[in-house]
Amino acid sequence: MPIQPTKSTFMNLALDEARAAAARNEVPIGAVLVDGEGKILAQAGNRTEAGSDPTAHAEIEVIRQACALRGEARLPDCALYVTLEPCPMCATAISFARLARLYYAAPDAKGGGVEHGPRIFHQPTCHHRPDLYPGIGEDQAAALLRVFFQERR
Amino acid sequence: MPIQPTKSTFMNLALDEARAAAARNEVPIGAVLVDGEGKILAQAGNRTEAGSDPTAHAEIEVIRQACALRGEARLPDCALYVTLEPCPMCATAISFARLARLYYAAPDAKGGGVEHGPRIFHQPTCHHRPDLYPGIGEDQAAALLRVFFQERR
Repeated sequence: MPIQPTKSTFMNLALDEARAAAARNEVPIGAVLVDGEGKILAQAGNRTEAGSDPTAHAEIEVIRQACALRGEARLPDCALYVTLEPCPMCATAISFARLARLYYAAPDAKGGGVEHGPRIFHQPTCHHRPDLYPGIGEDQAAALLRVFFQERR
Repeated sequence: MPIQPTKSTFMNLALDEARAAAARNEVPIGAVLVDGEGKILAQAGNRTEAGSDPTAHAEIEVIRQACALRGEARLPDCALYVTLEPCPMCATAISFARLARLYYAAPDAKGGGVEHGPRIFHQPTCHHRPDLYPGIGEDQAAALLRVFFQERR
């Protein structure tokens, strides 16, 4: 029987993407999008700087890539792993893409849109809410961001 | 002295993009992005179906195009004209792009994120709020959407 990748494995890959983003001078956030059978459809880091694109958050990147791969605008069997609580833009995109599950590592009191700010999935006008699994890999994800901003202040 | 394009002119172009979207079987929403001197940087309609991309709202399309054109992730001199009240995803992207002004035609009680739902620009965690000008071209924009959905129900 093949060894099934675990939730920590996927979050570790997302953390690798966050580290690779930091090495490119991008805010270190990474994401992995996994289908219902545990196959990785897309993985990416934040690339707002490289792409001069304010929408190029890691979550948007993997959603766009996986949708393009499938030729579908909805991915109802899929799970997203991301190293930081998604912002309101990404949370809304996750809802539009009908993702089944959202795993995120660190909370984001300043910019998050899931458990902070507009709490997108709790809005009466939000038509799809993924199952939420915060906290896996939180310490590592938070440390990556802390070091990145300390070095730049 | 050259004739300056008016706000109605830009909204009419956005309405043209919405009509073109409808002709492609996309939800009829269009957007135009204009710089501080009144020059059009990008215009686009919704293309979520054609691109199999749940993030390909008209607003995201013009922001991405204009940022790519300029090589900048922020467009602080620019104004966005769009035929429907932006959703929370697009409102957040507008904030990230630091757009100066947002003109939108029709309100969207079901899916809007500016004066409805999470009211993104009123959130304490929203760091940039454009000046808001709703209502230009409202009747035409609302009629386009009404006819589109009537024909498909």
